[in-house]
Amino acid sequence: MIDFKLIVQSENARAGEFHTAHGKITTPVFMPVGTQATVKALTPEELKEVGAQIILGNTYHLYLRPGTEIVGRFEGLHRFMHWERPILTDSGGFQVFSLAKLRKLTEKGYQFQSHIDGSRHLFTPEKSIEVQICLNSDIIMCLDQCLEYPATHEQAVEALELTTRWAQRCKEYWEAETGGLNHLFGIVQGGMFTDLRQRSAEEIMGIDFPGYAIGGLSVGEPKELMMEMAAHTLPLLPADRPRYIMGVGTPEDLVELVDLGADMFDCVMPTRNARNGQLFTERGTINICNARFREDEGPVDTSCSCYTCRHYSRAYLRHLYTAREILAYRLNTIHNVHYYVNLVKEMREAILAGRFDRFKKAFYSKRQ
Amino acid sequence: MIDFKLIVQSENARAGEFHTAHGKITTPVFMPVGTQATVKALTPEELKEVGAQIILGNTYHLYLRPGTEIVGRFEGLHRFMHWERPILTDSGGFQVFSLAKLRKLTEKGYQFQSHIDGSRHLFTPEKSIEVQICLNSDIIMCLDQCLEYPATHEQAVEALELTTRWAQRCKEYWEAETGGLNHLFGIVQGGMFTDLRQRSAEEIMGIDFPGYAIGGLSVGEPKELMMEMAAHTLPLLPADRPRYIMGVGTPEDLVELVDLGADMFDCVMPTRNARNGQLFTERGTINICNARFREDEGPVDTSCSCYTCRHYSRAYLRHLYTAREILAYRLNTIHNVHYYVNLVKEMREAILAGRFDRFKKAFYSKRQ
Ligand SMILES: [Zn+2]
Ligand SMILES: [Zn+2]
Repeated sequence: MIDFKLIVQSENARAGEFHTAHGKITTPVFMPVGTQATVKALTPEELKEVGAQIILGNTYHLYLRPGTEIVGRFEGLHRFMHWERPILTDSGGFQVFSLAKLRKLTEKGYQFQSHIDGSRHLFTPEKSIEVQICLNSDIIMCLDQCLEYPATHEQAVEALELTTRWAQRCKEYWEAETGGLNHLFGIVQGGMFTDLRQRSAEEIMGIDFPGYAIGGLSVGEPKELMMEMAAHTLPLLPADRPRYIMGVGTPEDLVELVDLGADMFDCVMPTRNARNGQLFTERGTINICNARFREDEGPVDTSCSCYTCRHYSRAYLRHLYTAREILAYRLNTIHNVHYYVNLVKEMREAILAGRFDRFKKAFYSKRQ
Repeated sequence: MIDFKLIVQSENARAGEFHTAHGKITTPVFMPVGTQATVKALTPEELKEVGAQIILGNTYHLYLRPGTEIVGRFEGLHRFMHWERPILTDSGGFQVFSLAKLRKLTEKGYQFQSHIDGSRHLFTPEKSIEVQICLNSDIIMCLDQCLEYPATHEQAVEALELTTRWAQRCKEYWEAETGGLNHLFGIVQGGMFTDLRQRSAEEIMGIDFPGYAIGGLSVGEPKELMMEMAAHTLPLLPADRPRYIMGVGTPEDLVELVDLGADMFDCVMPTRNARNGQLFTERGTINICNARFREDEGPVDTSCSCYTCRHYSRAYLRHLYTAREILAYRLNTIHNVHYYVNLVKEMREAILAGRFDRFKKAFYSKRQ
């Protein structure tokens, strides 16, 4: 069972820690997304330099390419991609839902065709866990049914019920196959309905998992609705287990969600926005293409200590980006991932020091 | 004046050294190409790790983007791109010749339109030197007239004569502007005609430069013709100045040219081929996409000590390349640049140890 230790709780905000087969994780924690066995544009050494404790891999992508047969030869993702710290893998369900072609959902699982070569596959709860075990993931996610937004109460009930039945199957398969090694997280669904969030939380907690995730947020709903769902669901979850908000979000979202008691995050924003020239700073987001940076000798963010900010000017980054140089994507990504990882690290330090309220006020006052 | 010191000469092969404002260069030396103020996909730290002593910048590209005004704010390329070691810049002539639109050649210089935005420019010998001084280049190249292949004897004579007159103007401008600071290299032309190569060498040497380059090779001619021109021209050049073969070539070319007495090389092959999945090894070139590497747990080259070969398998590199991940271009480029820089470094060590002949035999015997 997971050894999650809550070190300080200040109002709802929590600082904790737990162990995995590949090392300790201190929370709150941000997990950079490494979809295809690489956090886009970065080496593992660069991820460590910015302070990343754990990364997320996408089971759907890795199952299709390179495939479990090849990753299995390396005893999992860690040696394959030269990353020895913890890895969390998603279940693959969300990507089947958003990327695959000709999906068909049955009690058994997802039938779909690969977006790469059209090949046909069946992804059951058992299959998802089997693939994640083969990837040697430290944190495995249950296969859940994703829901489009907006969805009716009736649709949300159906998805919730299937998600519960699948969660039970995932847990049974995981225990049978691994004897409970590594950590399997259950996922709370329920769409945008507080009664269903409550029901889903109860059912998933009833199965009993090492950790809990809140899924189905940031799927197109208004920001207030997302925060309402998170605020309603987080307090329902047991205090002695890590709480993971999946696929969220902006720096402001992370600050608000930590304030509500969330422990773990993943999001493509720092990496994807970097490749689009959008850089996060303590004063807000800048677009490095902007003509006002043409001759700007200063760093992206004067308060940032990342490799990019230590050695390069905005003028140089703008030049690289305009010239579509690979180094532009690298340097932008280093800065953005550093920003996210450090924002969450600073929140942890503020919680430990009993000054999260002040941290939050300062965070907003610096933004333009 | 340049302090080129010939340390060992074994038959024609030479090991030497000279100083620049940004440090010593030991020869033979390979210069990775950094067209747009970046060696594509690499950081300066990675270049240093593979042993690069000096890189090449392209004056035509840098003049158009970001422009001398911006690089000038950083007192040149070094601080702009965070590379403190020596930089050689070409004259821009070759790129005007191969990339620019609507070129017109007069006694004055090249009139052309930018390939980026169609803007009109005049590139004179004086302008080329002025731009290179602004880039704070350690080794500046004279503007020469490039020649298409094949060209008639008459065309080659015309180009040669203009190249000589321009070389004189370059030297005068460089002396007037810098008092002879840094190193200005003259370029020997003459097409594929030995009598014209001899005449050009004599005329350019008559002007007296700190170093000499052989231009107009590897422009589409058969390999034997290129080697014949190099073999004819290299011995004409003074022994106490560095000899630079521009824009050449394959690993075999480098071995042959060092054997003929060449000291300096630049070529886009290691960087460009890396981005196309072509990797150099001591046994020959491999294409990382090849299906036979699908499950290959070994490194690209078992004899290579680069970052890529130390930490990644062919199977992983093939996966990254197939998935078109940025990290693929990075890891491939690190390996290829390491290969080139080290090949030349090993040749230097062999010359110093008096065993270049044996080195060359071993080099060919390993290749398949
Ligand atoms: Zn930074
Ligand atoms: Zn290597």
